[in-house]
Amino acid sequence: MTNQYDNVYINETATIVGPYEKKGPLNSYFDKGYDDLYFGSNTWEQAEVKLIEESVDILLSKAQKTKFDVDVQISGDLLNQLSASNYAAARIAIPFLGVYSACATSVEALIVGANMIEAGQAKSAVTSASSHNNGAEKQFRYPVEYGGPKPKTTTFTVTGAASAYLSYNKKGIRIESSTVGTVKDLGVKDVFHMGAVMAPAAADTIYKHLKNTKRKVDYYDLIVTGDLGIYGKRILKDYMSTEYGITLKNYDDTACMIYEEGNKEVYAGGSGPACAPLVTYSYIFDQMKKGKYKKILLIATGALHSPTMVNQKLSIPSVAHAIGLEVIE
Amino acid sequence: MTNQYDNVYINETATIVGPYEKKGPLNSYFDKGYDDLYFGSNTWEQAEVKLIEESVDILLSKAQKTKFDVDVQISGDLLNQLSASNYAAARIAIPFLGVYSACATSVEALIVGANMIEAGQAKSAVTSASSHNNGAEKQFRYPVEYGGPKPKTTTFTVTGAASAYLSYNKKGIRIESSTVGTVKDLGVKDVFHMGAVMAPAAADTIYKHLKNTKRKVDYYDLIVTGDLGIYGKRILKDYMSTEYGITLKNYDDTACMIYEEGNKEVYAGGSGPACAPLVTYSYIFDQMKKGKYKKILLIATGALHSPTMVNQKLSIPSVAHAIGLEVIE
Repeated sequence: MTNQYDNVYINETATIVGPYEKKGPLNSYFDKGYDDLYFGSNTWEQAEVKLIEESVDILLSKAQKTKFDVDVQISGDLLNQLSASNYAAARIAIPFLGVYSACATSVEALIVGANMIEAGQAKSAVTSASSHNNGAEKQFRYPVEYGGPKPKTTTFTVTGAASAYLSYNKKGIRIESSTVGTVKDLGVKDVFHMGAVMAPAAADTIYKHLKNTKRKVDYYDLIVTGDLGIYGKRILKDYMSTEYGITLKNYDDTACMIYEEGNKEVYAGGSGPACAPLVTYSYIFDQMKKGKYKKILLIATGALHSPTMVNQKLSIPSVAHAIGLEVIE
Repeated sequence: MTNQYDNVYINETATIVGPYEKKGPLNSYFDKGYDDLYFGSNTWEQAEVKLIEESVDILLSKAQKTKFDVDVQISGDLLNQLSASNYAAARIAIPFLGVYSACATSVEALIVGANMIEAGQAKSAVTSASSHNNGAEKQFRYPVEYGGPKPKTTTFTVTGAASAYLSYNKKGIRIESSTVGTVKDLGVKDVFHMGAVMAPAAADTIYKHLKNTKRKVDYYDLIVTGDLGIYGKRILKDYMSTEYGITLKNYDDTACMIYEEGNKEVYAGGSGPACAPLVTYSYIFDQMKKGKYKKILLIATGALHSPTMVNQKLSIPSVAHAIGLEVIE
């Protein structure tokens, strides 16, 4: 499902990161960074709650708004039952819709919010997405303290939260179009190779978005996927070319941008719901405002990984949602 | 956030249940019922995937549509990572948005879908919600086979799936209004008393819905909550009266309707995302079409229960979303 919008803008954004991201090349673009993984909380899960809450505080302050100006918050994260988002929502106290597309959650939230703003059903919306490396690793694989070795195709869940303030006020970056992705399952079972799981979903969504908007790849100054990582990025380029006959140009992946290139600590790059919006709302928006990019297509990619289902020997489905972003003319 | 709609209709619904619900008083209203909890699948989780898939098959068949007629599916369930919905979506292959409000998921999906239909962003949408008793108990409390005793305030997760076909075609039941709920946390930590957890969220949403639409309780022929159960229902009535000065009349709770009254096997009544839509789409819609009710307000209630957070000694937040449904004039 592809939609186009006339009156939806991301007026303001807020980005907050943990220690690994703070050490990365984009640190100067983030609003706030922490040197430890607890942020004064007792547990990683509660630390993630704090990240979301703080990102919304920073967002409202930057937008010079209060929570009473916001009609709806749309948010999700990787923790079971979206608990980071839910507990944050209890403190933030804005009418709340929980959404989940794994690491594509940020764009799902933007699409739901953009649709409501465009239709006048909401005057303003806050969308948020978050992830916490240790919270996610413990839940999906093994506690980080176990120190288990991992293959090089592994991606490294970003610790951070990113929020956006959406309204029909012509300020910031324009949301121009969106495509809701279809869930794909090509039979990949490797929980240490999410790039391979997600690349086919990304390809399908990019193809449909271009087809439905009658555009060519070069319509966009930058096509950027969420968290395919070094290897997933290669797979996507190959797959788009062989399956759809489309050569991806001006293409990058936020997983490959958030950490220093060649940093072995983070394997094939970043991942998690926070990865795509952290890079987009900070560095990419900055480059757009400086004139480097006028039109970008962001495709957030989500591996719908369930440890329960993988233990039952099922493969991992994936989904990708796309959103077209433009500099205001 | 409250919205009103002019052009959104639930054209068709499909309901499918497990053995406990099949033995209940509403069985003749459901489209299909199974006598065991596996439905030919190997595990409870995969059984739930099958329920959703089958409910969408039945829905499309009743609506005389194919999946190619549907712009978007909006669905959620209780399994971690919404895995029942995600795996079903991979098979159904309609553009997919995952949503989560625990047992209020069905109404969150209806609200997101209704907003898109009203605005013309989607011509048609399928919304689904499901739950599986054994899958949910295993994940949130203890495997059912342990046979642990439970207090009488416990509710019993319904096994079933319910799907609805939404479009702007004037047929079926009209969606007239909606209110997105705000997350509430009043400090309740008892995982065996979800009615107490959720009643304040239900009260807040009912109050705001009536206030924002400038209506009194008696505007509706029936006000029906999702799954407060026997004790939660009493708490809600008390709480609405003492906190908001509102006396709930013509009020019922789907948790108290889906099973035989006094059935000790199900404790205080039904629960789970499937509970509210199973009863509403079958028995209540039937009564509406027969003229018993013209206008109803459905408030699905969700305990945002995270076993991880409860183990960390935190209380349980909750949310309730409301939707106004009317017979077409």
